[in-house]
Amino acid sequence: MAVYTEVSDADLATFLADYALGQALSFKGIAEGVENSNFLLETETGRFILTLYERRVRPEDLPYFLGLMEWLAERGYPCARPMADRTGVTLKTLAGRPAAIVTFLTGLSARRPTTAHCVEAGEGLAWLHEAALGVAGRRDNDLGQDAWARMALTLRDRAEVLKPGLADVIARDTVFLDQAWPSDLPTGVVHADWFPDNVFFHAGRFAGAIDFYFAADDQLAYDLAVALNAWCFEPDGSFNITAARALVRGYERRRPLQPEEKVALPVLARGAAMRFFLTRLADWGDARDGALVRPKDPLEYERKLAVHRAAARDGLALFDDS
Amino acid sequence: MAVYTEVSDADLATFLADYALGQALSFKGIAEGVENSNFLLETETGRFILTLYERRVRPEDLPYFLGLMEWLAERGYPCARPMADRTGVTLKTLAGRPAAIVTFLTGLSARRPTTAHCVEAGEGLAWLHEAALGVAGRRDNDLGQDAWARMALTLRDRAEVLKPGLADVIARDTVFLDQAWPSDLPTGVVHADWFPDNVFFHAGRFAGAIDFYFAADDQLAYDLAVALNAWCFEPDGSFNITAARALVRGYERRRPLQPEEKVALPVLARGAAMRFFLTRLADWGDARDGALVRPKDPLEYERKLAVHRAAARDGLALFDDS
Repeated sequence: MAVYTEVSDADLATFLADYALGQALSFKGIAEGVENSNFLLETETGRFILTLYERRVRPEDLPYFLGLMEWLAERGYPCARPMADRTGVTLKTLAGRPAAIVTFLTGLSARRPTTAHCVEAGEGLAWLHEAALGVAGRRDNDLGQDAWARMALTLRDRAEVLKPGLADVIARDTVFLDQAWPSDLPTGVVHADWFPDNVFFHAGRFAGAIDFYFAADDQLAYDLAVALNAWCFEPDGSFNITAARALVRGYERRRPLQPEEKVALPVLARGAAMRFFLTRLADWGDARDGALVRPKDPLEYERKLAVHRAAARDGLALFDDS
Repeated sequence: MAVYTEVSDADLATFLADYALGQALSFKGIAEGVENSNFLLETETGRFILTLYERRVRPEDLPYFLGLMEWLAERGYPCARPMADRTGVTLKTLAGRPAAIVTFLTGLSARRPTTAHCVEAGEGLAWLHEAALGVAGRRDNDLGQDAWARMALTLRDRAEVLKPGLADVIARDTVFLDQAWPSDLPTGVVHADWFPDNVFFHAGRFAGAIDFYFAADDQLAYDLAVALNAWCFEPDGSFNITAARALVRGYERRRPLQPEEKVALPVLARGAAMRFFLTRLADWGDARDGALVRPKDPLEYERKLAVHRAAARDGLALFDDS
């Protein structure tokens, strides 16, 4: 979340007239995240987040994302609920961008997650996997394992600029991942971006999740692997096995992993590190003028990828939860 | 407002324990303004803005600013009210910065002000001048006319980079302003930053003001001149005399100008343009890594300054409200 596009008060008033939410009382850009423009909108009837969808999110995917959020909210899952206008439409246009209003979700994200946060975050993720069962839409994970070799090829030059010799290491990793990637694990809807920024807590308990704009169909344990990378590395780059065990334990409170999912976690985590390394590398060179946030450092995920590569080479069991 | 400094959830919890505001329920960085880090903070007892004071604001000035806001809020003026901690202190420290919590003020700023907005904004400014009468603190305007010749000298090289030949033009302007500047107009507390960003409306009426961090003692009509520059220029750089008359008319609803104040408006507006040109020129070269907002364009105020210079040369009466 960030602010790439300004919305005038006149345009906002015209936009809100389509809804039965009352007049705007307050409207402020939010300085978070990197993908879309987000505004905190207070009207006579409540508080909402207004999002203008910018790059990366494909407009044709938005009905899926909004439909998923509606489905989850209807089943009591704590996520923002898309608001329909007077004609029942949730996906609209504002300032030339696709736009939607969703309910405001309270809760605090953990900037420095503790082991206790990891337990809760794991449980919240498994709850999402349960609650999404049966949702009508389908969406292929266009940033899933199938895409990495091609992305790495496109970004070869940039990888070399980042760190000489890296392009070949990454190319070999994508070959390894292609061979080692599991294909028979339980599938379902994955959040695919289960980072501390996107998970809210209240009084230490899981309180909700935001940012479903990478959600897709994929192997469920891959979602846990994304989370392991996002929650369980220390600032010094070391992997915190206590945090990892806590995340898995929390997950299994809701959905016990199958033995083959546990076996696959190291390769899934290595792939998940590859995914975020590649998209950060792509964003790193594409920083837009006018963005209110900086691109995230691709080296953070290059280092995580290296940790997983070394663990595989040395036979270390990073995810042994015995 | 922007976000220069991150606040961890643990630091926030420790900070809030000093207050009787309850636990944090929500905490989001706001992507507005350029001076300080601002967060929307919701607690169990209400909504607030938490500000970390960054560059330009001198810590020793903060008691004046917070005292002024308290004074105004106690007199029913619609501005944010500083919240005291359990020991009565409003100015605190968080993440190594001076910090304060103020009440959340609802209202929308006008991104494209209309004539009607100008009337209301003028009246809101005069109301501020009235309401501030009698406030205990005093603060010299360190960005007032006295400071401009020195600032222009320091920024000579930068002015030349911006536009060849500009340094001498600016130097001559500062000499002119030094000679022509009035010194016997009514004085009081000026807001000194009465821009559309800092003025809130509700249903088309003035609803409040924020950002008192340039407030100082100065000639009151100078504040109106700052506002004329900020509210009454069209995007194409032309001066909108209808908007200017509306602003003055609104101001005079609350506080009729004295004849000598009206006579002084052109030179005051030229000086006000100088002040914002100089500070934007200074900021333009000082853009900080990590800032979530870009410095404002100094050329916008160079053009406004040129309009005032040309009007003086040609004997045009930009502010004739007859």
